[in-house]
Amino acid sequence: MDEAAFINSETIDDIAVGAAFLGTGGGGDPYIGALLAREALDRHGPVRLVQLSHLNDDDALFTSAMMGAPTVLIEKLLSLEEADSAVRALERRVGRTATAVIAAEIGGVNATLPIAFAAFRGLPLVDADGMGRAFPALQMGTFNVAGVSCAPVALADEYGNTVVVESLSAAVAEKLARPVVTAMGASAAISCYAMTGAQAKIAAVAGTITAARKIGEATRRDSASATPPLARLIAALEGLPLYRRAREVFHGKITALSRDTTRGWVLGRCEIESPDRRSHAVVEFQNENLVIEIDGAVAVIVPDLITIVDYETARAIPTEALRFGQRVSVIACCAPAQLRTPAALEVVGPAAFGLTGTYRPFDTPPQ
Amino acid sequence: MDEAAFINSETIDDIAVGAAFLGTGGGGDPYIGALLAREALDRHGPVRLVQLSHLNDDDALFTSAMMGAPTVLIEKLLSLEEADSAVRALERRVGRTATAVIAAEIGGVNATLPIAFAAFRGLPLVDADGMGRAFPALQMGTFNVAGVSCAPVALADEYGNTVVVESLSAAVAEKLARPVVTAMGASAAISCYAMTGAQAKIAAVAGTITAARKIGEATRRDSASATPPLARLIAALEGLPLYRRAREVFHGKITALSRDTTRGWVLGRCEIESPDRRSHAVVEFQNENLVIEIDGAVAVIVPDLITIVDYETARAIPTEALRFGQRVSVIACCAPAQLRTPAALEVVGPAAFGLTGTYRPFDTPPQ
Repeated sequence: MDEAAFINSETIDDIAVGAAFLGTGGGGDPYIGALLAREALDRHGPVRLVQLSHLNDDDALFTSAMMGAPTVLIEKLLSLEEADSAVRALERRVGRTATAVIAAEIGGVNATLPIAFAAFRGLPLVDADGMGRAFPALQMGTFNVAGVSCAPVALADEYGNTVVVESLSAAVAEKLARPVVTAMGASAAISCYAMTGAQAKIAAVAGTITAARKIGEATRRDSASATPPLARLIAALEGLPLYRRAREVFHGKITALSRDTTRGWVLGRCEIESPDRRSHAVVEFQNENLVIEIDGAVAVIVPDLITIVDYETARAIPTEALRFGQRVSVIACCAPAQLRTPAALEVVGPAAFGLTGTYRPFDTPPQ
Repeated sequence: MDEAAFINSETIDDIAVGAAFLGTGGGGDPYIGALLAREALDRHGPVRLVQLSHLNDDDALFTSAMMGAPTVLIEKLLSLEEADSAVRALERRVGRTATAVIAAEIGGVNATLPIAFAAFRGLPLVDADGMGRAFPALQMGTFNVAGVSCAPVALADEYGNTVVVESLSAAVAEKLARPVVTAMGASAAISCYAMTGAQAKIAAVAGTITAARKIGEATRRDSASATPPLARLIAALEGLPLYRRAREVFHGKITALSRDTTRGWVLGRCEIESPDRRSHAVVEFQNENLVIEIDGAVAVIVPDLITIVDYETARAIPTEALRFGQRVSVIACCAPAQLRTPAALEVVGPAAFGLTGTYRPFDTPPQ
């Protein structure tokens, strides 16, 4: 038995730490999902992790995720019954029963919730996801870019109410589902992008559960290594073909913060000052960090990954946990190649977020 | 062949005029529905009107209505494809095909749209509805009071997008559907309260399509009668066992108006001054007129019907067509008995609209 092919209550913490990094500030607190996953793994046994290439073409893959403002995901307890209610509504609608679970995004709670749900249902989890990171809207990801239909989209609240959206595009599904989530109390369980194994092989970003685990392992608190956590994090990222190059683009203290959750997301900005007070960075976010400007110039922009981490521990700090005076580093790494194609940049590039900057890959050599 | 048992393009105008009155200010402009209905009747032939008591117990009844702010219903063109899209989504979900159409409400556009839809689908229309008037929310009506499940609720927009809400109560269906309607452009086609003939016999208000036609006939512009339209309207209402007693409770000129459509309804008030300027009335509405206060005292309150009509023609003036300086009469009549039971008053009485006044039947003799 290949141990790496199973997720158990020991590996779950590393995955949660890695998912917090890949969440780039958003995606909700993965530790809540991890708590739920540990409980489910303890009760139902380990979850088998299946590689994308090992799927049968006629496998029926279902996503299980939470939709809503991450700040609310923390306040409202997740329940697997709620997650199950959404997936069952979608299974009923498409007339298939899940043979495997796939994460919609590898960032935040939506990386760990599918593990808990797979345990709950006794299903394997695919070592892949639809973003290679986290994004704030349903249409933003490789499933949509590859032509997998986002709809039907099933939403469920904690009382057993469900809503199924059938739309002609993922962007319209997002537009119709978002206000339902707000009406359901600003967060809801969601299942969408029901797909076959054959579709997933084309549409998903492969190896991301394992990538999250490796990122988590590298920054583990109890590591015997003499190398500081930040250096270990960067080395781990550079060792992953998915993320290729990584670098600390800024460090300093948080001097200003603004956050607004009224529109169904956490929108805002975080300002950071360098230790010598000569340099200033501004990180803008919509759930996820979208762009970092250093002294007025764009340094890194979506879809490349921008994560604010604790300067000492290298642990990712979700947007909702940012505090005035925190000493932080901003780590950037390359977006998976599937997010950098022209078709992908149309749905996850700067313009998709209303940003005016053009996308310049983070690892482009200086001109 | 009993002519009254068919709706054709001649009877549709009378039904529209009656439905405007029974809409008590809301329900959307019935003339738009009438235009659509006339076109559908011309194309597909007359619609058979079936009495509630003649339904088979296993008939599959479907409602077809528009949900949203009446002001928007005027601006957005209705389409039967949109209506059909909502009904088909509901048929798919409940696994039955409509054998007859029933109106959700006899007020406004939702009285005439079901006629157009019945013609379009070649189905009979039941001479009944679920309100005996119009109300602004899904849970407000006799279907819900009698225990017919409002859910599943199917919504459709003009592009072919649909949303199906499954909720544990009609009030929750309302809460989840309303923001979807807003996201669909502030009005949408809806189908809900799918029921059997047996259920309808208990839950529906009987004879309301015919009642609307009779009210329309009485106030017909080309009537040969020497009696003024207002007197004919009141006589027609008093001749209908459903509405029993009617009276002009106020007349004068509109001196002030306020309307707010930002919350998915038209909320506001209309102030009227008597010709001698000594008496003042205030009509408050939430799509429909809810209460009229005359010189500070409640004169009539929901569920009794309050309709502002043109002083000369006795034609109902929908909320969105009220104008400063208009000379109007306020006509009140009794709510159908099914709306006056203690169970009904819980969902359609003053408290259900956040009004503090207690319900006192309009026809209670003065103390």
